[in-house]
Amino acid sequence: MELGMIGLGRMGGNMAKRIRQAGHTVVGYDRDPAVSDVGSLEELTQRLSAPRAVWVMVPAGDPTRATIDRLAEALDAGDVVIDGGNSHYEDDQKHAELLAKRGIGFVDVGVSGGVWGLQNGYALMVGGDDEHVKHLMPIFEALKPEGEYGFVHAGAVGAGHFAKMVHNGIEYGMMQAFAEGWELLEASGVVKNVPETFHSWREGTVIRSWLLDLADRALQEDAELAHLKGYAQDSGEGRWTVQAAVDLAVPLPVITASLFARFASRQDDSPAMKMIAALRNQFGGHAVET
Amino acid sequence: MELGMIGLGRMGGNMAKRIRQAGHTVVGYDRDPAVSDVGSLEELTQRLSAPRAVWVMVPAGDPTRATIDRLAEALDAGDVVIDGGNSHYEDDQKHAELLAKRGIGFVDVGVSGGVWGLQNGYALMVGGDDEHVKHLMPIFEALKPEGEYGFVHAGAVGAGHFAKMVHNGIEYGMMQAFAEGWELLEASGVVKNVPETFHSWREGTVIRSWLLDLADRALQEDAELAHLKGYAQDSGEGRWTVQAAVDLAVPLPVITASLFARFASRQDDSPAMKMIAALRNQFGGHAVET
Amino acid sequence: MELGMIGLGRMGGNMAKRIRQAGHTVVGYDRDPAVSDVGSLEELTQRLSAPRAVWVMVPAGDPTRATIDRLAEALDAGDVVIDGGNSHYEDDQKHAELLAKRGIGFVDVGVSGGVWGLQNGYALMVGGDDEHVKHLMPIFEALKPEGEYGFVHAGAVGAGHFAKMVHNGIEYGMMQAFAEGWELLEASGVVKNVPETFHSWREGTVIRSWLLDLADRALQEDAELAHLKGYAQDSGEGRWTVQAAVDLAVPLPVITASLFARFASRQDDSPAMKMIAALRNQFGGHAVET
Amino acid sequence: MELGMIGLGRMGGNMAKRIRQAGHTVVGYDRDPAVSDVGSLEELTQRLSAPRAVWVMVPAGDPTRATIDRLAEALDAGDVVIDGGNSHYEDDQKHAELLAKRGIGFVDVGVSGGVWGLQNGYALMVGGDDEHVKHLMPIFEALKPEGEYGFVHAGAVGAGHFAKMVHNGIEYGMMQAFAEGWELLEASGVVKNVPETFHSWREGTVIRSWLLDLADRALQEDAELAHLKGYAQDSGEGRWTVQAAVDLAVPLPVITASLFARFASRQDDSPAMKMIAALRNQFGGHAVET
Repeated sequence: MELGMIGLGRMGGNMAKRIRQAGHTVVGYDRDPAVSDVGSLEELTQRLSAPRAVWVMVPAGDPTRATIDRLAEALDAGDVVIDGGNSHYEDDQKHAELLAKRGIGFVDVGVSGGVWGLQNGYALMVGGDDEHVKHLMPIFEALKPEGEYGFVHAGAVGAGHFAKMVHNGIEYGMMQAFAEGWELLEASGVVKNVPETFHSWREGTVIRSWLLDLADRALQEDAELAHLKGYAQDSGEGRWTVQAAVDLAVPLPVITASLFARFASRQDDSPAMKMIAALRNQFGGHAVET
Repeated sequence: MELGMIGLGRMGGNMAKRIRQAGHTVVGYDRDPAVSDVGSLEELTQRLSAPRAVWVMVPAGDPTRATIDRLAEALDAGDVVIDGGNSHYEDDQKHAELLAKRGIGFVDVGVSGGVWGLQNGYALMVGGDDEHVKHLMPIFEALKPEGEYGFVHAGAVGAGHFAKMVHNGIEYGMMQAFAEGWELLEASGVVKNVPETFHSWREGTVIRSWLLDLADRALQEDAELAHLKGYAQDSGEGRWTVQAAVDLAVPLPVITASLFARFASRQDDSPAMKMIAALRNQFGGHAVET
Repeated sequence: MELGMIGLGRMGGNMAKRIRQAGHTVVGYDRDPAVSDVGSLEELTQRLSAPRAVWVMVPAGDPTRATIDRLAEALDAGDVVIDGGNSHYEDDQKHAELLAKRGIGFVDVGVSGGVWGLQNGYALMVGGDDEHVKHLMPIFEALKPEGEYGFVHAGAVGAGHFAKMVHNGIEYGMMQAFAEGWELLEASGVVKNVPETFHSWREGTVIRSWLLDLADRALQEDAELAHLKGYAQDSGEGRWTVQAAVDLAVPLPVITASLFARFASRQDDSPAMKMIAALRNQFGGHAVET
Repeated sequence: MELGMIGLGRMGGNMAKRIRQAGHTVVGYDRDPAVSDVGSLEELTQRLSAPRAVWVMVPAGDPTRATIDRLAEALDAGDVVIDGGNSHYEDDQKHAELLAKRGIGFVDVGVSGGVWGLQNGYALMVGGDDEHVKHLMPIFEALKPEGEYGFVHAGAVGAGHFAKMVHNGIEYGMMQAFAEGWELLEASGVVKNVPETFHSWREGTVIRSWLLDLADRALQEDAELAHLKGYAQDSGEGRWTVQAAVDLAVPLPVITASLFARFASRQDDSPAMKMIAALRNQFGGHAVET
């Protein structure tokens, strides 16, 4: 089938490639003329035959909002917009309503796979109406990994991004679990060959996983991760997971601790610990570092 | 080669079977005569030709200590004892010293694999001297999964159990991450088909892992885990992981939170929260549940 | 001076009393005619001489919003509205803008003191313009405790509720610290007389505090808090504190853990721990409770 | 009465002073001849009349152990040794047994008060036999704050140090709660005058406490704690509290999080976060800081 793809960065570009490899036609638009197939978003919509399907793969927040606003103008009733970016699930409802006023459908897709997706396939979590999802199945089939896994129609509009958000929250917790275990092994010195230990864990253990495979890769390249700084960004979905849990009164100690560890990693010095130092000095005359 | 195996329970029994399937001779001893090959531990040592190798697979703590005491009497210089149970790594040093006085070697092995090990192989983390480990490699080869993974000689005596302890700590954190994500999905209701979502995650996602496969299995059997109580034991290794981290001043927020969640799951009512309720009532006149 | 007070419940009623005791005139309105001085909010505004000051002391959220909407109609330019409830600091800005369109001022006040405020005074954290705050100082003086403490003009509109929100976050953490210490003392049995120990801590210790005084009171009344359930509500401010911290990338492990402990206290059974139980059963054949 | 005091550092020296101010006779011994009343521990015991009471106030661990060993030699049946240092409660039992073999009594005392104790009195948590505690009451009366608080006979040998250990655990949690609240206020910028806000909280609030008074003092001296590094030692009791809780299966999320925050404050870079950075780079091609 025919698909418009807006945003041809690392993710969008590779996804367009994988969809084309499956025999579909993709018309891509990107602000960067070097990778764009057309000169404007409007040109993209004109190049597609109705009913059109346009996949938005731009940064969440304002860029996605602005793109959807423009698509609401440029598309016609019966077309469908897919948001495959990392939008908040509550934005999906707003976008769906905006588009519905013009008879345009909306589907949200949480996409996992990163730089490996082109080769292995992208896991897709999809939210939206049955009719839209059914219509888009050929594209989803092209993107997803082969076999029975890697695709779910999770629910109505928003469910795709919600599922992806929770996936990422779980991911934070799993990564932190490996990170803590690694730090403890390194700190104790009891285990002499930590990289070999991680390597061995890849089969037969309870913790075997893709993240373990990647940890093994990283340690094979740099046994002590000496070239890296202990500094980690967060992409937003971890925060949303925690905030959703707080709204729902769901205790989320592990995922939240993982998020806070990232926050702390980005602080040159901890303000909170300045206060601890100040208090210790006040009551105990404990020496402080200045 | 020839191996004595003491303890033929769920783990030991299956391990003996897998070793025999690889063509080795196992003489097994168990308190339960129905599964034991010999009438006593002493008879077991007499049945083996020197230099003997005896694998202890009994509960950690007193049963392991008592068994090793008896082996110190029953074995001869040049023999070697393997502790494949869940002993604390500091006990290993004591056992090694005790046996060394009589010229008997000691190797500690952390074993992962659970009920699936017979079929898939057991991941082995080994601590001890090179000569003993080399001598026992045929047994390790029989037990471990096929291929390059699933075995590590992690260091000197104690390193095997230390590596296994950290493995289990990581396991606690990963399990809790999945558990929290599952609870959040269920609580929100945004995702309509939670089991299908877990199922879909098995390929293409960052969180794909054996534990996810098992979560999927569990949800396929009982979509809401309705027949289970939210009650979880801990096997000791999670506690030791936290205590080792505290000794080494390593922050371990995720693994510790996972352990505490298990502790809390076993309380009928939370004493701490009684105090919270009492304080709220004292200062705010907040209603309390009695 | 003259003050209108809307909401004469436990908090508003006692505050009106304390303001009157200081010699001011309070006209109170409440939905409950038994405690109300007037028949309607509109009658209240007619009873006050311009420029009027009206203190809103009703539940946060819709009731406060509705009251402020009505006051925007009933008041005149030059009047000022005070929100002394537990509103979210972002609502303050909206309320201030709504009222400013009609020339009406707005001041937000975080109030601490609970059932003890009538006697000891209420701690006030105030947000708003200098001119409004200065105008209202006689009322603030009447409410606050005697002496140099208990009042702060924390900043512009919203700052009062933000300060109160953080105060409550700290309160959550402190309460949980006492609760955990108490549980540990009870669990260990090493300390034979736990209530006496709490009692002794009230002077000379680092942890002496009003909350400790209240814990002592509670334990004097019921040495093991046996008549209480370990069940605790949260009032919203703890959640907002965590969500503000997540927005600002501030790690807040202790306050968040305190909030999650309350969430967990309200669950009959932990869904997350059902998943833990399911996973342990899947990989290890561990017995589960059903 | 007459008391020997071993260790005349910041704590011991001030305590000796306060005891003397109450009219008792203190013979002090310290390794530093400039402050010592006698030339040796043995001379100290000779200067006291039987039955002697000797208070040990030296660092916990080896120094305390060595001092008690020497006192076991130098004292006689009927004498009593008091350990007022920060010993682990399990050491108390060992020391009590050692001394009991020679008929010497043992009492453990957890002492709180820091640099303010000389003036305000020291809170005392005491473990030991009734007869010893009764005999030493004049000394305890001299040390404790005036009034009904500040002293508890918490139980048998070990109970004093256990109570003090838990006190310190609670202290960690309270300090961290204030620290987190302060960091959030500073990070948001909504509250313009943070030191004034802390100052105001000293009366009328739920969080009023001695630690808040000290935080206020610290912020009055340095409004942004700009001269301090966010670096905090831990004294051992926090670790013991967590380890005791883990042994007893008591969930202690807040106290543990406070301890971990201190551990993290002492790391130049977080090893765990290096692993997080490595994993993010592996799966997502995320930029890393090197």
